Amino acid sequence: MAGNTFGNLFKLTTFGESHGVAIGGVLDGCPSGIEIDLAAIQNEMDRRKPGQSAIVTQRKEPDTVEFYSGIFEGKTTGTPIGFAIHNTNQKSHDYSHIKDSYRPSHADYVYDQKYGFRDYRGGGRSSARETASRVVAGAIAKQFLSQIKINAFVSQVGKLKMDIPYEQLDFALTESNPVRCPHPETAAKMEEYIKEVRKEGDTVGGIVTCVAQNVPIGLGEPVFDKLHAELGKAMLSINAVKGFEYGSGFEGVRMKGSEHNDQFNQDGSTKTNYSGGIQGGISNGMDIYFNVAFKPVATVIQPYETIDKEGKKVTTKGKGRHDPCVVPRAVPIVEAMTALVLADYMLLNRSVKFE
Amino acid sequence: MAGNTFGNLFKLTTFGESHGVAIGGVLDGCPSGIEIDLAAIQNEMDRRKPGQSAIVTQRKEPDTVEFYSGIFEGKTTGTPIGFAIHNTNQKSHDYSHIKDSYRPSHADYVYDQKYGFRDYRGGGRSSARETASRVVAGAIAKQFLSQIKINAFVSQVGKLKMDIPYEQLDFALTESNPVRCPHPETAAKMEEYIKEVRKEGDTVGGIVTCVAQNVPIGLGEPVFDKLHAELGKAMLSINAVKGFEYGSGFEGVRMKGSEHNDQFNQDGSTKTNYSGGIQGGISNGMDIYFNVAFKPVATVIQPYETIDKEGKKVTTKGKGRHDPCVVPRAVPIVEAMTALVLADYMLLNRSVKFE
Amino acid sequence: MAGNTFGNLFKLTTFGESHGVAIGGVLDGCPSGIEIDLAAIQNEMDRRKPGQSAIVTQRKEPDTVEFYSGIFEGKTTGTPIGFAIHNTNQKSHDYSHIKDSYRPSHADYVYDQKYGFRDYRGGGRSSARETASRVVAGAIAKQFLSQIKINAFVSQVGKLKMDIPYEQLDFALTESNPVRCPHPETAAKMEEYIKEVRKEGDTVGGIVTCVAQNVPIGLGEPVFDKLHAELGKAMLSINAVKGFEYGSGFEGVRMKGSEHNDQFNQDGSTKTNYSGGIQGGISNGMDIYFNVAFKPVATVIQPYETIDKEGKKVTTKGKGRHDPCVVPRAVPIVEAMTALVLADYMLLNRSVKFE
Amino acid sequence: MAGNTFGNLFKLTTFGESHGVAIGGVLDGCPSGIEIDLAAIQNEMDRRKPGQSAIVTQRKEPDTVEFYSGIFEGKTTGTPIGFAIHNTNQKSHDYSHIKDSYRPSHADYVYDQKYGFRDYRGGGRSSARETASRVVAGAIAKQFLSQIKINAFVSQVGKLKMDIPYEQLDFALTESNPVRCPHPETAAKMEEYIKEVRKEGDTVGGIVTCVAQNVPIGLGEPVFDKLHAELGKAMLSINAVKGFEYGSGFEGVRMKGSEHNDQFNQDGSTKTNYSGGIQGGISNGMDIYFNVAFKPVATVIQPYETIDKEGKKVTTKGKGRHDPCVVPRAVPIVEAMTALVLADYMLLNRSVKFE
Repeated sequence: MAGNTFGNLFKLTTFGESHGVAIGGVLDGCPSGIEIDLAAIQNEMDRRKPGQSAIVTQRKEPDTVEFYSGIFEGKTTGTPIGFAIHNTNQKSHDYSHIKDSYRPSHADYVYDQKYGFRDYRGGGRSSARETASRVVAGAIAKQFLSQIKINAFVSQVGKLKMDIPYEQLDFALTESNPVRCPHPETAAKMEEYIKEVRKEGDTVGGIVTCVAQNVPIGLGEPVFDKLHAELGKAMLSINAVKGFEYGSGFEGVRMKGSEHNDQFNQDGSTKTNYSGGIQGGISNGMDIYFNVAFKPVATVIQPYETIDKEGKKVTTKGKGRHDPCVVPRAVPIVEAMTALVLADYMLLNRSVKFE
Repeated sequence: MAGNTFGNLFKLTTFGESHGVAIGGVLDGCPSGIEIDLAAIQNEMDRRKPGQSAIVTQRKEPDTVEFYSGIFEGKTTGTPIGFAIHNTNQKSHDYSHIKDSYRPSHADYVYDQKYGFRDYRGGGRSSARETASRVVAGAIAKQFLSQIKINAFVSQVGKLKMDIPYEQLDFALTESNPVRCPHPETAAKMEEYIKEVRKEGDTVGGIVTCVAQNVPIGLGEPVFDKLHAELGKAMLSINAVKGFEYGSGFEGVRMKGSEHNDQFNQDGSTKTNYSGGIQGGISNGMDIYFNVAFKPVATVIQPYETIDKEGKKVTTKGKGRHDPCVVPRAVPIVEAMTALVLADYMLLNRSVKFE
Repeated sequence: MAGNTFGNLFKLTTFGESHGVAIGGVLDGCPSGIEIDLAAIQNEMDRRKPGQSAIVTQRKEPDTVEFYSGIFEGKTTGTPIGFAIHNTNQKSHDYSHIKDSYRPSHADYVYDQKYGFRDYRGGGRSSARETASRVVAGAIAKQFLSQIKINAFVSQVGKLKMDIPYEQLDFALTESNPVRCPHPETAAKMEEYIKEVRKEGDTVGGIVTCVAQNVPIGLGEPVFDKLHAELGKAMLSINAVKGFEYGSGFEGVRMKGSEHNDQFNQDGSTKTNYSGGIQGGISNGMDIYFNVAFKPVATVIQPYETIDKEGKKVTTKGKGRHDPCVVPRAVPIVEAMTALVLADYMLLNRSVKFE
Repeated sequence: MAGNTFGNLFKLTTFGESHGVAIGGVLDGCPSGIEIDLAAIQNEMDRRKPGQSAIVTQRKEPDTVEFYSGIFEGKTTGTPIGFAIHNTNQKSHDYSHIKDSYRPSHADYVYDQKYGFRDYRGGGRSSARETASRVVAGAIAKQFLSQIKINAFVSQVGKLKMDIPYEQLDFALTESNPVRCPHPETAAKMEEYIKEVRKEGDTVGGIVTCVAQNVPIGLGEPVFDKLHAELGKAMLSINAVKGFEYGSGFEGVRMKGSEHNDQFNQDGSTKTNYSGGIQGGISNGMDIYFNVAFKPVATVIQPYETIDKEGKKVTTKGKGRHDPCVVPRAVPIVEAMTALVLADYMLLNRSVKFE
């Protein structure tokens, strides 16, 4: 209720501050008997981790997951999967610029207002480091959902937009470049642009697009827990996200019903897919696709004016090694959250279709 | 879990099909001692109800709420507020065009796939009629949240966009025209356009913008239950919604961190508000604002080809009285869901700040 | 969260005060396609209702259920089942003895302390009238669980205890007498005793025993949500209940492990059943049986001293028509809550055993 | 939903098998700014741990808690408290007697039926080792609830019952003897008896009584989530518990209303306390007291006949070091669960009394 749990039946609870002893989580509700490929989990962690390329933060964190329970002889037992990732980087640093003043567009100020007290080393619980636990759980969800294909990729960086329908992309190319854009020419431009921005000590936003294919018909609950509502919440819970749209999205606003309606083929599939694979909140078997907008990272390596705890003006400057653009590392996080949502509805759906 | 409940502490459960005996709900968790203005509730109902102007559906439904419990001598008692709205319009109609074939971009097909059985009269549970129950509960939430001001309005219809910052608008004008756009000149153009579209038997999408002012600092939970994540889910749970963005939203993607960061004033407020009143998932006391994208209504009064239950092609045509554009009637629904989210966090927040 | 919802997937939310307009509820999560026998539901209501025999309260309440949604052409649709029971008896009475003073061992005092305000007509939400909504939902749960047999009966009234193992009883006799004790000789003594107590203007406690047979193996979750823990909570949530025990119960305390252990037969059943059909919180296919202890009803028709809102001593006397012993009418309520618990675990269990 | 979470706002999720890498949990919702005494937590762990006296199991487990998050500079931060207790004892043992055959009255059989697969080393998730995580969280809850006094003690072992009203006991004596019975003469007899039973290779049941004093008025929700219903569920979720009663309990059944009603004093307290400190599900400020019945431990060190996975008869014998009587070590667990329930209602109650 303090909001560290996601999901109803396939349920992840996370803990941990960026500079505490460890972060981790408990994944409850994963069915028994699922074979777990630990290397595949670590691979997802490596896609998210800092220091993997020249355009992301140069911090070094090995992000090695220790599993404590719920997996036995290579398979899930149906009991909760407890895991932790020890922070190797939490030594004493100089946090005075964070402790005593509030970084603009960070959570420092509201944490102090809400809790009256905060772990000022790093971003505490508001740090994107928390998402590492989501990637662990999402990687298990992906293995549970082996028949569903989830592919996220970067489709926009700043004003550089890849305007190619996802059906024409080869998702195998997503990992071929550090930006994680499956269109190599666009990826090269994006990479160049991120490097420029980094040189300025600045940051820039971007969009991650995600496509889920081979999703069974019937996932989603028709009123408050519509499939796209839960996907939206999942995406908006990722740090730095400012918007979510699925199917025709914000562009659909400009269309007329006669154009926008997806006509049926005789097998129940549709000729177009403005619906984005979801009708009335329920998956219809077509591809689910959506866009997630990320703002530019707030930490800029430039001097700025701000206030301290007493409301006095101070001038300070971002320090440390931060991402100039968050979207390349956000790709596995978007996939993980998508997998968690779909896994939850897979379990829930069995309950509804009772014979 | 079948998704008919919204909220955790201020919690609404709804029931009812569009053509059943009644729709209604139970609002649990509303604190005791709140004075309830029944006329204000009915006023919100009237803003949502069909037949209120020339540009909405001409169905006549009085939408009179009966309260069954939880209010005594004009005040809430802290016990659940049960209410119902009897359907006056559920007589035997000819539903054969819905019963035997699937309307494109409606939920008919997925309902049959998911439940194996459906109440084919009207849209059943997927009908926007369900939102009347949300408006009842939202109207109570507004009275509970009397210090917070929630104003939604139409900011776009099809390609007609009102490009005026909300700070320059007079919200008192929203109800001055049937479109519910607070800029009279734009409203007139939108009204004209909706009338044209209706004449064609077609429909068009739009955007509702919502602004919540005077929100206390500290609402929202920092990880999965970020304030904007729950607002996003709430909005995406409204029929026909395809997208949600708050603060800088999708436009923020194109900005650099140095422009996007909201610099502090000495009192903790910020000079700009790209954050949209929320930092790290927690309200910071600035205005919260967001956009909600609605697709064009699927029911068009034009002939179309579709399939029947056996997958055979049939040609049919939309009937009945439907909205050519959903956004004017969506305004009170967006406000209601906003109020429900904020009321829930108000209660939850007290728990966190414990002394 | 204000506690008017029971269950996770098969979920009942109730509303209504004893003297308000109506009581009722929403049953969410009932699978689609279950044939509903409305007469069977009304029959359960009649078992619970006042005025059915000489040893229960003589109030007349027809307790007719109106269904508003979720049932179509005689079957559940999978959507929420909304229902209400209008109070026919809520006319203006003289409530001054309740309004101005606190009845001993009633909830009046704590309601005023907790909510600062209460609907003083009748017991409000603390009245056993609320259980009528549980009986409606439980009757639907029974129809969903048609293969499981749930039989509750009165096994003790005051000091009169029926000491016969349930296996030797004919449950068909439970309804043969107004006490609902399936052993006619004991029933006759109990009836006599209750009549005596009533003449004195007094009340007496009792025990309801419940047996659930043909329960599938595997219901229950092994840690916090053990099957017997949820059954215990369900029973303890019924008005006037003071204790719950299952299997060997409090007597089991006196036994040694070597006697108490249930030895296996070769088919996995056990020779004895001290476990009460549940091992480690999970049903094992044997009969589930448990006892529920009810205190004597607090309303006695004798003069008593109490305090008013200002803490001044007042002498007053119970009025109206009350049950001298609650257990005969509690039998269908115990069965209803048992059915709700089992239905919830039936749905949940499908999620765990995933293939 | 797979039942490894307890509580709504003060919420514990546990993980871990008895012979896996570690057990542990996440406590979410603990308010910020609570000073944490780590030694007091370890003290509670030591009261529960094996090997502490001659009448409990002689296994050696240091049960050292590692905290991973949520505590900073000696105080809670309001973020989730993650913790783990590494299993030091999980080396390769001979588990063939558990792996291939089912121990009577254990969860082995139902686990295999439910999950199709189990971690057969030790009891896995059904082992009482899981309760160590509850004691950690309960110890934190006690510190949060510093004004409330929670005292549990052993009141019965086998047929040896201490028949002294709790008001006449000195709780300081509970820890003076290994049985944890605050009446030294009875304690000595109980200790003797447990030693005898252990010599026979047998086990025996017992009762733990718990008293919570200085509980604020108003905790508990009046319908399904009555305070005693949640306490009952909490107790019944502890391994080996067969029954729960509060206030007058099963004895209250034999009383008449005129005797059982608790008459008010002028300050709102009551002259008697058959209600057990709870009226209508809500605390009334009087002492809350209840009994928890524990069956004899199933593992006896005597030969017994059972079945293997194929249903063939086998003769085997319990091994290892087990408790002859579980109640002395159950005392801190009962206190921990009581603290968790009260902490949750403390947070929830703030929401209800809103000004």
